[in-house]
This record gives sequence, C-alpha cells and structure tokens, in this order.
Amino acid sequence: MPTLSELTTALDALWPAGRAESWDAVGTVCGDPDAEVGTVLVAVDPVQAVADEAVRLGADLLLTHHPLYLRGTTTVGAHTFKGRVVHTLIKADTALHVAHTNADRADPGVSDALAGALDLRVLAPLVPDPDDPQGRRGLGRICELDTPLSLAAFAQHAAAHLPATAQGVRAAGDPDAMIRRVAVCGGSGDSLFEQVRAADVDAYLTADLRHHPASEAQERSPLALVDAAHWATEWPWCEQAAAQLDALSERHGWGLRTHVSRLVTDPWTAHAASGLHHDYEYPGAPN
Amino acid sequence: MPTLSELTTALDALWPAGRAESWDAVGTVCGDPDAEVGTVLVAVDPVQAVADEAVRLGADLLLTHHPLYLRGTTTVGAHTFKGRVVHTLIKADTALHVAHTNADRADPGVSDALAGALDLRVLAPLVPDPDDPQGRRGLGRICELDTPLSLAAFAQHAAAHLPATAQGVRAAGDPDAMIRRVAVCGGSGDSLFEQVRAADVDAYLTADLRHHPASEAQERSPLALVDAAHWATEWPWCEQAAAQLDALSERHGWGLRTHVSRLVTDPWTAHAASGLHHDYEYPGAPN
Amino acid sequence: MPTLSELTTALDALWPAGRAESWDAVGTVCGDPDAEVGTVLVAVDPVQAVADEAVRLGADLLLTHHPLYLRGTTTVGAHTFKGRVVHTLIKADTALHVAHTNADRADPGVSDALAGALDLRVLAPLVPDPDDPQGRRGLGRICELDTPLSLAAFAQHAAAHLPATAQGVRAAGDPDAMIRRVAVCGGSGDSLFEQVRAADVDAYLTADLRHHPASEAQERSPLALVDAAHWATEWPWCEQAAAQLDALSERHGWGLRTHVSRLVTDPWTAHAASGLHHDYEYPGAPN
Amino acid sequence: MPTLSELTTALDALWPAGRAESWDAVGTVCGDPDAEVGTVLVAVDPVQAVADEAVRLGADLLLTHHPLYLRGTTTVGAHTFKGRVVHTLIKADTALHVAHTNADRADPGVSDALAGALDLRVLAPLVPDPDDPQGRRGLGRICELDTPLSLAAFAQHAAAHLPATAQGVRAAGDPDAMIRRVAVCGGSGDSLFEQVRAADVDAYLTADLRHHPASEAQERSPLALVDAAHWATEWPWCEQAAAQLDALSERHGWGLRTHVSRLVTDPWTAHAASGLHHDYEYPGAPN
Amino acid sequence: MPTLSELTTALDALWPAGRAESWDAVGTVCGDPDAEVGTVLVAVDPVQAVADEAVRLGADLLLTHHPLYLRGTTTVGAHTFKGRVVHTLIKADTALHVAHTNADRADPGVSDALAGALDLRVLAPLVPDPDDPQGRRGLGRICELDTPLSLAAFAQHAAAHLPATAQGVRAAGDPDAMIRRVAVCGGSGDSLFEQVRAADVDAYLTADLRHHPASEAQERSPLALVDAAHWATEWPWCEQAAAQLDALSERHGWGLRTHVSRLVTDPWTAHAASGLHHDYEYPGAPN
Amino acid sequence: MPTLSELTTALDALWPAGRAESWDAVGTVCGDPDAEVGTVLVAVDPVQAVADEAVRLGADLLLTHHPLYLRGTTTVGAHTFKGRVVHTLIKADTALHVAHTNADRADPGVSDALAGALDLRVLAPLVPDPDDPQGRRGLGRICELDTPLSLAAFAQHAAAHLPATAQGVRAAGDPDAMIRRVAVCGGSGDSLFEQVRAADVDAYLTADLRHHPASEAQERSPLALVDAAHWATEWPWCEQAAAQLDALSERHGWGLRTHVSRLVTDPWTAHAASGLHHDYEYPGAPN
Repeated sequence: MPTLSELTTALDALWPAGRAESWDAVGTVCGDPDAEVGTVLVAVDPVQAVADEAVRLGADLLLTHHPLYLRGTTTVGAHTFKGRVVHTLIKADTALHVAHTNADRADPGVSDALAGALDLRVLAPLVPDPDDPQGRRGLGRICELDTPLSLAAFAQHAAAHLPATAQGVRAAGDPDAMIRRVAVCGGSGDSLFEQVRAADVDAYLTADLRHHPASEAQERSPLALVDAAHWATEWPWCEQAAAQLDALSERHGWGLRTHVSRLVTDPWTAHAASGLHHDYEYPGAPN
Repeated sequence: MPTLSELTTALDALWPAGRAESWDAVGTVCGDPDAEVGTVLVAVDPVQAVADEAVRLGADLLLTHHPLYLRGTTTVGAHTFKGRVVHTLIKADTALHVAHTNADRADPGVSDALAGALDLRVLAPLVPDPDDPQGRRGLGRICELDTPLSLAAFAQHAAAHLPATAQGVRAAGDPDAMIRRVAVCGGSGDSLFEQVRAADVDAYLTADLRHHPASEAQERSPLALVDAAHWATEWPWCEQAAAQLDALSERHGWGLRTHVSRLVTDPWTAHAASGLHHDYEYPGAPN
Repeated sequence: MPTLSELTTALDALWPAGRAESWDAVGTVCGDPDAEVGTVLVAVDPVQAVADEAVRLGADLLLTHHPLYLRGTTTVGAHTFKGRVVHTLIKADTALHVAHTNADRADPGVSDALAGALDLRVLAPLVPDPDDPQGRRGLGRICELDTPLSLAAFAQHAAAHLPATAQGVRAAGDPDAMIRRVAVCGGSGDSLFEQVRAADVDAYLTADLRHHPASEAQERSPLALVDAAHWATEWPWCEQAAAQLDALSERHGWGLRTHVSRLVTDPWTAHAASGLHHDYEYPGAPN
Repeated sequence: MPTLSELTTALDALWPAGRAESWDAVGTVCGDPDAEVGTVLVAVDPVQAVADEAVRLGADLLLTHHPLYLRGTTTVGAHTFKGRVVHTLIKADTALHVAHTNADRADPGVSDALAGALDLRVLAPLVPDPDDPQGRRGLGRICELDTPLSLAAFAQHAAAHLPATAQGVRAAGDPDAMIRRVAVCGGSGDSLFEQVRAADVDAYLTADLRHHPASEAQERSPLALVDAAHWATEWPWCEQAAAQLDALSERHGWGLRTHVSRLVTDPWTAHAASGLHHDYEYPGAPN
Repeated sequence: MPTLSELTTALDALWPAGRAESWDAVGTVCGDPDAEVGTVLVAVDPVQAVADEAVRLGADLLLTHHPLYLRGTTTVGAHTFKGRVVHTLIKADTALHVAHTNADRADPGVSDALAGALDLRVLAPLVPDPDDPQGRRGLGRICELDTPLSLAAFAQHAAAHLPATAQGVRAAGDPDAMIRRVAVCGGSGDSLFEQVRAADVDAYLTADLRHHPASEAQERSPLALVDAAHWATEWPWCEQAAAQLDALSERHGWGLRTHVSRLVTDPWTAHAASGLHHDYEYPGAPN
Repeated sequence: MPTLSELTTALDALWPAGRAESWDAVGTVCGDPDAEVGTVLVAVDPVQAVADEAVRLGADLLLTHHPLYLRGTTTVGAHTFKGRVVHTLIKADTALHVAHTNADRADPGVSDALAGALDLRVLAPLVPDPDDPQGRRGLGRICELDTPLSLAAFAQHAAAHLPATAQGVRAAGDPDAMIRRVAVCGGSGDSLFEQVRAADVDAYLTADLRHHPASEAQERSPLALVDAAHWATEWPWCEQAAAQLDALSERHGWGLRTHVSRLVTDPWTAHAASGLHHDYEYPGAPN
C-alpha cells in the first residue's frame, strides 16, 4: 500500500497543481502524508453525505473534483458545515485531495469524460494549453456527433446519457436546428463564449448558464445552448479518474480499491413543468 | 398626449433613479424628450424581437425592466446586436426607457408583482430600504402561504402560476418539507442568502441559482430553494407597471394606450427530463 | 458604391483599430453595415453643427478624428447633446466612424499632416512604433525647418500656416532663440515631454498646454514651446484623410464624393490682448 | 521680529492646512522654525527667478501660492531644478511657505482677489464649504457685474484689469451675448463645470481650459467661457495676502517688510494672431 | 461540564469577536461545539509543542492568544506544520479557540496583565476604545511607576519581572534618563508611536521593534524604548485569562480545570553579548 | 579633485541605480553637482549625529547606505528631524548620496562585507541576479565556515566579530546544533526565508527578525537563526565602500580623503539579561 504522500505524488503527475487556475485551490486538504492508503472514493463534491460515505466505506482517501475551501478559511471548527466535514474525515483517518481546474485542463480531462459519456468524438480543446505541443490539453473540448441530431433530439440524448438528475436538461435556440459540431465544457462554462464563437460550432453544452449570458448569446447570432446539471457534467470524470487510479495501482502493485460515489450531489431534487398557456408566445414561433 | 419628457418625469416619481443600485443603468436609453407619446409597450427584455414588436404596434415608448446597456458602450453601430435595437427604435421614433433595480426596490415593486402572481401574502421587504419610514420598500419580499404546501406541491404551484416557460421550475431540498413562510426575489437572487437566512423562512424562490450557491445553502442548514425562469419571475411586474401607467394616464387625461408584451424572452426553448437510472441515488433517499 | 462595411474595412487597413491606445474608442459609432456609402464628410469633431452639415450635404458617412464617446455611455437619448448627434445621424442614415489615436500613429498620420501644413521636413516619429520596421509610424514627429527662424518668427509662421482661429498661437521661451529642429504633435501633447527632451529639439509645437507642465518644462532647461488651437493642429489631417479616401475610391472604382468640413470647431471665438503694464516684468527681460 | 514658527502659526490661522485638499502639499517647505523673519516676498510660483529675487531682496521668507513639491520627492539635489531652488533658499536663510488650496478656500480667498481685480461684486462661493456657517468660504465665487457687458467687451475688460501677459485672454461663445452673472475660479477651474451649471451664470472665467472640456461645455448649452493666464488669475491674491501680512505685523508689532513679486511667471512669452482665412467659418456665423 | 459552545459563548462575552481588528482571525479554530469541556490549557502560541502539551494534559480546549491561521488557508493537511497541529488536536478531541486583538482591547486586557507583571499603575488606555463609556478598554496602557527609575534600572526591572527568556530586554535612549511615566503594549507595538508621542511618556515598552522605527523614534525627540520578547510581554495575559476562566467556572458551577502553559515559545534560545571594542562610539557618549 | 557629478558617476558604475529595488530611493539626496569633493565620510545611517560628524570633518560628501527619504517628502523644513539634516548638510556644502539595495546586490556587496567580517567563505548569492552571467551579484550570500561550530559558538563568534553593540546577538534553535553552511543577509532579511530554505543551510544570520517569522521558521523545520543589530550587519560595507572609493581615487588621481564613521547608530543602548526562573521551560529542553 502506498502512503498518502506517494499516492498524491502520482496524482500530481496526472494533474499537476501548476496547471490549475491561479485562483483555484487544489491538492491535499487534510490527511497525514505518512498514512497508508488502501481504499479510495472518488466524487464530485466534498459534502457531508459524501464524507459520511467515505467513512462508511473505510476509505483512506476521498478524491473530489470540487475544492472544500476555494477561498481560504481561518477556522475548521465543526460549528461550520465545512469544518464538520474536516472533523469527520480527520477523525476517521480519511484524507481529502482535490483535482479541479488542473483536471479540467488535463489530457484526458473532465471534458473528455463528458464527451465520452455523450458519445461525441473529440476534435480538439476549446481553449488549448499553449504549453502542450500535442495540442490535447486545455479547457473544454470541440467535438463532433457522428450523426447530426436536431437540437431537441440532442437535448434528449444528453438527458439520457448523463447521470440522471431531477432537473434534467435545458436547451436554447431553435429546437429543429441541426447539430453536428458541439463544444462541451464540464461545470460552469459561461466564461468561454468568446472561444465557443471562434470554434464555429452548432451547439455549446455546459452548466449553470444564467439569463443574461444565455440571452445575449442568442441575440448575437444563432448558437444552440444545452445546459445540464453541473454535477452531471462532471460526474463522468469520476469514473475516468478511478480508471486512472486503477492503472496506477496496477503499475505500482499497490492493490488500491477504488470506488466511485453514486450519490447525486446536484442540489435540485424536483422539477415541475409549466402548464400550457396560450397567452405567451416564443419569438419566431409559427402562428 | 404627453411628451416623452413629461412621461419620464412621471415614471421617475414611481421609480426614482436615485434608488437604483450604483452599478445600474436606468432611465431613458434613446428617444427625443420633446416627442409625443401615445402608445407604450412594457416588456422584460429589450431584445430585437421586442423592439420589432414595439415598432409593429406603433409604440412611441418601449418600457423595459432590463437595461440595454448595463455597462457603457462607445458604439451603437448596427453591426452589434444592441446597436441594431437602437437603430430600429430611433428610426421608428420609439423611445426606450428602463426601470430596473429602482423598480425592484419600489412599493409596489418587482417582487410584489411576483408574490401576487404566486398568491402569496407579503409581510415585509427582505432587504428593507432604511430610508422608507413605512417599511415597505426594498429588495425581495418575505411572504406567507395561506395554506402550507409541501415543497413538491409549492414548486408545482409556482410552475402553474408563473408565465409558462420551456424550462419549468426546479426545487432543492426535501420534497416533502412543509412550506409556509417564503422569501421571493424576482430575477437573480443569489446575493441575498444571508438575509434569507435571517428571515427564518421555509423556502426561497428566485432565479438563476448556480450549483455552488445552491449546494452550499443546502449544506448549511435546511432551506428549500425554488428556481424559476428569470424572465418568468419578472414578467408579472410588466402588468403591474402597465396598470400604474394606466392610472397615471387617467389622472393626467393623457389617453395612453399601454400594452404588455407576451413574447417569451426566456432563452430556454426546450427541456428534456432525465430517464430513471437505478445507478444514482440522492443522499437521504429511502432505500 | 461600397457598403459601409466594405468602406470601414478599407479604413481599418489605413488605420488599424489595434494600433489605437487601449483607452481609446475608435471605429464605427453608428450606422448600418449594409447601407451604401456615396458621400463622405471628414471633420475633427463630431459636434452637432458638424452632424447638421453632414445631413445638409446628404453624407452617408461622417468620418471624424475625435470619438463621440471616449468613455462608455449607457444612454443615447436625445436629452443629452451627444445623444442628439446620434439621433440626427441615425434618422438621416448617416453613419459615424472615428479614427483617433490609430490615425495619430499611422504613416502618414496626424502629425505628418501638421508638419506638412507648417512646411516642416519630417525626420522621424517622436515616439516610434516598435512594430514598424520602416520606422515611420508612431506618435508625433521630429522635423526640421529648412531655414532657422527665431521663436517669435516661428510662432508667426505657425499662426499664418495653420487654419485661422480666434485664439491664435502662443509661444514660451526666449522670443529671439533660433529654432531649427522642432517636435510636433497634433492635439494635446503634454504627455510626451520626456520624449521631446530626448529628441534634442529647439521647440515643441502642440496644443492644450497648461500652466504647470509648461512652467516646469521652462524651468528644467531651455526648450521653446508653441501652443496652437487643438482643432487647428488636427484639421490638416482631414485633408490628408480625404485624399486617402479619394485614392481608395479611385482604386476600387467606388465613385465616392468626399468633402472636408471647414467649420471651425475650436470653441474659442474671441481673443483680447493685454494692454501694456509697466508694473510687471518677465524674468530675464532686459532693463 | 517674529520667528518663522511664530509667523507660520499666524499664517495657519488665516489659511488652516486642514482646509487644503487631501492631495495638496501646503505649509513650510524649507527654513528653520527658530530663525527670525523681517522681510517677506509673496509670489505665485516658487521658480528659480523668484527664489533669486527673494535672495536679492534679503527676504527671510518666500510665501507662494503654488507648492514646490506637490508630489513627494526623495531628493533635493541641485542637479534637479527644484532642488536648486531649495539650495538657493537654504543657503540664503530664506524659508519657503505655501498656501495653496487652503488659500483658495479661505475668506477672503484667491477668487475674492480675482473678483476684486475684475471689479465684480461677489455674491457667494461657487462650491461653499459646508463647515462655514457664514457661507463665505469655498472654492470659486459667483459674482455680478454692475453693468452687463457683451462677452467680447467682458473679455477686453478682463485683459485690461488682470496683470498683463503675452498670451492675453480667450473667450468662447457668442461674442455678443450679454454677461451679467459670472462665476470665477483662480487657476485651473475645469473640475467645477457641474457647479458652474448649477449656479446659472452667463459666463465662467478661469484658466487652463483645454479643447475637450471647453468644447463639451459649449455643446451642452450656452455658457460663455473666459480663459486667462493661470498666473494672472492668481496674482491678485499676492497683493491680498501681503495686505493680510501687513495687518498681522501691525497687530503684533512685528515690523515686517512685505513685498509682492512682479515677475511674470506665466511661461508664455509671445502671442501670434491668425491671419484672416476666408476658407474657415465658425458655426452659426452670419453669412 | 459545559459544552464547547457554552464555554465559547462565555468567552465571547469577555472578549467579543466584534472588538477584534478587521484583519484578525479570532474565535474557534477547531473542535465540536457539542463536546464537553472539563480541562483547559491557556498559552500564547498554538505551536506543535503546546498542542502536544494540551494532549498530554487531556485538555478539551486549548485557548491561545495568537491565531493559528491569521490569513486564510485552503488546506489543513498534516504535510504543513499548522495542519499537523490541527490533526493533533482534532484526533485528541481538543478544541482550539483564539482571543487575540479582542483580548488586547479588553478590560482587563493583555496590556493590563503586562502592566501588572511590571508593578506599574495603569492610568488609561493608550488608544481608548471610543465605544467604552468607562474609558478603560483599548490598545496599550499608559502607566506610572511609583518610584522613578533610570532607564537602565527600568530595563533591569523588566528583565527581572517578565518571564525569563534567553534574549532578555533591550533599551534605547540615554541609560541615565529618569523614567516615571511609561506606555506599554503587549506584542508588536510599532504601529502606536503616534499615540505614544501624544501620551507624553518617558518610555515605551513593547516588543519586536526593528531598526528603522526605533531609530526614527530616537531621532524625532527623546523617548526611551524598552523591547522585550514578544512572548514574554503577552504571557502574563495567560494567567489573567486563567483566573477569568476560574471565575466563570465558579459562577456557573462548571468545575473546569484550567492550566497555564509554562513552555517558553519565544523562538530565541541563546544570547551572546558583544565584547568591548574601543573602535566604536555611541553618539553623545562622554569622552 | 572631482566634482560631485564626476564622483557620483563613478559611484553609479559601482552600484548602478537601475539595480535598486523599484521601491527604493538611491542616488544624490542633496548637494551641488558642480561642487568639488575632497573629503568623504561613509556611514550606515544619515542621522543628525552623522551629519554633524560630516560637518566637523569638513566632508564634502556623506555617503550612506540608508536613504534619508525612502518615501517621498513635500517638505525639508528644519521643523522635521530629516529636514534638519538637510539644512545642516546644505549649509555646510556637504552632499548626501545613498547606495542602498543597489549596494546590497552588487559584487562585492553588503553581504560580502558581512561574510568577510564573520570569516565566512562565500559560495554564491542567496538570490542571484539573473542578469549577471558571472553569478556573483544578488541579495544575501550562501557561505561556509571552514570549521563547523555549534550554534551557541557561532553566535559568540558573530558577537565577537561584528561591531560591538549593546544589544549583542540572539540565536534561535538548538544551541548544540552544528553549523557549517550559513546564509547571511545584511539588514532586515525576513523576506528571504523561502530562498534560505532552498539553499539548504544550517543557519541564517540577518537582522530585525520578529516573533512570528522566527517562530514559524522554527516550526517549519530545523533551521538555526542568528539575529544581530541591523547596523552591525551593514557597517562592514562602509569599510568595503571606503576601500572602493580609495581605489577610484588612486585610479583617477583624485586625492580623496575617505573616512568611515565609527558612531554606533544602532538605537539600542542597553541590554538586561533575564534572571533564572525555574518556572518556565523551553520545549525539548532536557529535564
């Protein structure tokens, strides 16, 4: 069995901390570098239910995509919900390690896993890492569907292939528009619209789009948008990361047991459709 | 018929520009102060389809909630989509006037209209304006349901009573939790969580909630969240504002013809539900 | 006849927007990219009288040196004097396009036109553009007079050769100092004193010099200053730009009619000389 | 004879340092607090010629309106022109003391002296000091002419009554407009246009106006501008300050000898009028 | 036995968090609010040796003056020395709570304990808290010696009465100067020189004075300085705080066992005196 | 004899101003560039006693390591203690010139002189200047002792070899630890801990270390610290600089008389050792 320190050295080779955004907080959040690691749980969110699951499993390491503390804290007291997670983990000898924007940018990265879940063929990164001579690393991915689908059908496809959530999937644009070329970005992708425009795609699939960016993107020129649960767009990375851990374990003869959490940590638990109102009309709708 | 200048003076009495946020951009965006105004169209978003509707109607004034230029521009050239709106309006002699956060804060304001659409009884502002001795102005509203509903039922109620949108309504929290006391905020309300906590409500209804604020709100302590289309939470204000314009017209003998746009300017045009996956599980779900 | 879009593409080749200062606002301010352009008016300032002249002329494009909106605006309402210019132009289908610091830096640029008006031989840019291998682009110009003149005579020469203004021309320094080498900068050149010092010139001709920069320049070491009307130092560029437009029209067979505005938009309309006071004395004056 | 320290204590009562702008640098620049002061020279600018005059006069104190170092310095070495002034003064035992924006704001202040030189009746400060119950302190002054004059005549009047300078006086606006109510501000007054508008005056007399502020002021609405030499608008304060020193000396029995410098420290030494060009035309000029 | 939460509520009444500096980080750093507290250790520094001592003692709470994390952290991993402290404490169920600048400002506060250790009579705070009607709270204390001592003797007195450290005590100023009135500030007091000047004292005793502040204070005017180990000036507060905890325990019948750490956490472990050099001389020394 | 200007040109070749930190203020502070320089005094601090010594000596130039004005000043009035130094020097025709961080970084530099005084063999700069192909310039020095010493003995060695001060020398860490490899930095070196860690040394000798940096350095991992008087660590540079001046004088045939000030400008004039307390204990001390 490796020590935590040996294992995180290997993780840092997969997802070097230096490739994270400057505002990000990746790496080990708690845990003893000399402790041995036999069992690992991989998840998107370091929330209490996931920490409890790690403890139930007897995991020595919880590897998550999201940081527990993106901004610095001066307390980990258990009177705070994040401090309670820290106490739960330290008392159970479970370390917490984060691979966030360094995993987004990696090859393979979060958006490769997302494209894979959606059966999309990856062509190139959406925002290539200038330091990668191979041209495979970077944020987001530009992809192609083998068979074009209407926007409505592509949204159905996404809903069917991503992990199920109560909120489902939303689409913006003409539901009949044909989609072949798609940009994808796991998580909140609203800062990449400029690059999406430059990529000349038919649609952009990401999460957490708000009214104004989505509305302005529609007004500027035709570009279909598909918005899924943030958690659902990043969960495929957990399986990809688990496979990478298995391969490391194999190579080093570590005998790691790696699990992927199937807890839905998307906060939205219910969805209600609007009824039909004949009073309202979408612009451009046939009359 | 009043001149534009006379009419905007009256609008400024309803929604004084000085009560807008410092970063906001309210007031007249285009139009000649000396032109006469006979017909007014009220809408949420100053997008091209709405500008075209105003021109088709022969409206002399388009009154919207959202600014066309929230941040300053150095061009209104028609090679930009916002500049095209400006050209459309100026060439048709249609003025554009905005009441945004000054209307949010007013009495009655945007969240009063939202509460009214939802059949909620308003108790107090969520963030009271310290300069209002009556204690009625401010951002958001704290409300009560006459009959408590489960969260699932309350989300259905919201979906049925707000203008219909393709995206419908999402809820976070235990679907069976009983909701009686509700905070509402038309538009993007994610900056008000601290005040919502202090208001000791069962649920918070607003729009544009993203993963991290919603997830952290759930982790902190039980608080149900209901998230509707941004446009749908603000549209009820258009009818309220139209009624206020009618009353002004009556009082001054202006003979204004006031219309409310029924174009759905929510950008989301389709929704796809996830299928059932037995692989994923919500935390705390019964097994 | 070219469309506005075709014409501005050609203008952008003369004066690329990317060569403007980062704080500047150049390019198209209003107008439809698909409209045809037959008549152009070139002027320094986009003020109301110039907009009215453009409309009277039936100009499809008004090309000015100064931006209408150097800082961003959130309104073009006609209750503002700049918004009135926008309404005047849009209603008459007259576009407005600006070439400002990109024209200052060009080859030929604003200061070449100024040097030409003054019969000065241009030697080099005052602040060379490091990206120009030819060494001809940049801010300001270092020039030579064929025949040296006293400062007093050079100021008279400038007053006689620049467009006439009520304010005339001021000079600082010893009126009898001989001037052969001159730096010139059209418009407000008070930020270039360091480069003027390094250029080892006898005099610096620019506009808008205030007391403290002029006084400190005098105290530091002998350097004659000549200060003309801002408008007068930039007007020669209008004729230069018109000739460039004529050449473009010729080359493309566009048949453009190009006019140069002769309205004096220098705001100063009168000058009063001081009488003789025997009470005051210039330092260093003979007794 | 008072010590420098006793005298500056008295000056600080006339012009308290706490009433200067936060960015200003007033008070004693050099000199020994214990040295005796018998002779004082008052001037606008602490330039070398004025320092030399102070030494020639045997002045123990040079009192100026402008700071020597408005921004901090880390050297007073005589290789810099300001450091040479410091060496000249310290070696001659001449102190330097500055009253700048604290004198602008005083009662009487710099603009009172300017109004007095122009035979204007002062009505109120342009920007009243909220801490002055008498309502007499503040920046600028609102004044009245006993007999209205045309703008052209008022500019002539200013040129005749202010200290003579080579540059003379400029005016903007209709030369025939009648002027009765005038705002004045000694020195560079371009930051006070908003208050000038609110004061409902016919003209604004100040110094150092540049093209853009003057042009925009003209475009906004009719307001005549009169621009004189910065030095000339502040020189009348020297005589006012000298009279205040004489009164202090009388009151304390100090026997001070106070002189006012008559060196013209306006840097402009020559003016050249434009010839007549029939090619250019002022907007609105008769044809 | 109280819970941690009950105990920290009582501590917050002694040292309200709202009275800490805005940049400070006080309150609970780790620990479960529902855990019971029977044994408390009070110390200056939350370093590893002190955490180990707390664990050896079976302390449920470690109360320190210095924060563990003054600036926020995104990791408490045991690969960092501070994270190791967190792991040590959480695994042993020992909470950590900090009272820093809120204890400095309290009545009694850190500087009262320091004055007490030095047998000084406290007259008033050095920087009074404007919100304390009694005038007893604030930073630092102004004190009096009952019998004046020379500076050399006062430094000896301080060395003898403060907890012993290897570095001892330094003094600046004339060793024979008589000291009666003394300002004291526990910890690093170099930001309070202005208030010390205003307090008209003979000496200022604090810690961590560096060359430039000490040198400039000496140059400005005679003021003796006494500089002791930072830890030694704050340790007396531990005994004072322990007594306050005992009183709370008594009042509530809590049966707390409170200990004060006697580990010297001053980092300096040795001192070497300079030999005599006849080559160097202190200014003003007798010859 | 050289002029001040000729001499400072030579000094600028030794210690180019462009190699000083951007926040530093080096070069000539007062003095006439054309004055002749025959006698020079070199010192660490430009305090009044040193200025007086320069005047007594008849020095034409005082060369110091510390700036008089590190931050800019708007007054050199003699009512301030720094202004009094300026008056003293200007009236005596004594120039002041500063070589601060440009001398720290030079080859040889301040830390070379310090290493020399301590009989340490210099291996390399602690923070190498990337622009020095020789690899000899930079901040601090990494050194070796020929014969390893215990920390206690090395502190004694430092106390014996540096100029004598009342405060002596402090050491942190295990007094018995063996020291062979040492980093040194004249003056306040607390910003270089990261580079000291990277240099893999046994001890770091510098000045002005405060409680928190020293304590944190100890907690992080074993690293002995030695803290001497700031003045004492920089004084050896004065002798080094004097030798450099002598060499320049020789080379140019200038006949300069160069003196080094032996005034101790360390502000600390007395030290008192703590008595023995059996109540306190250093962590890790034998029992």
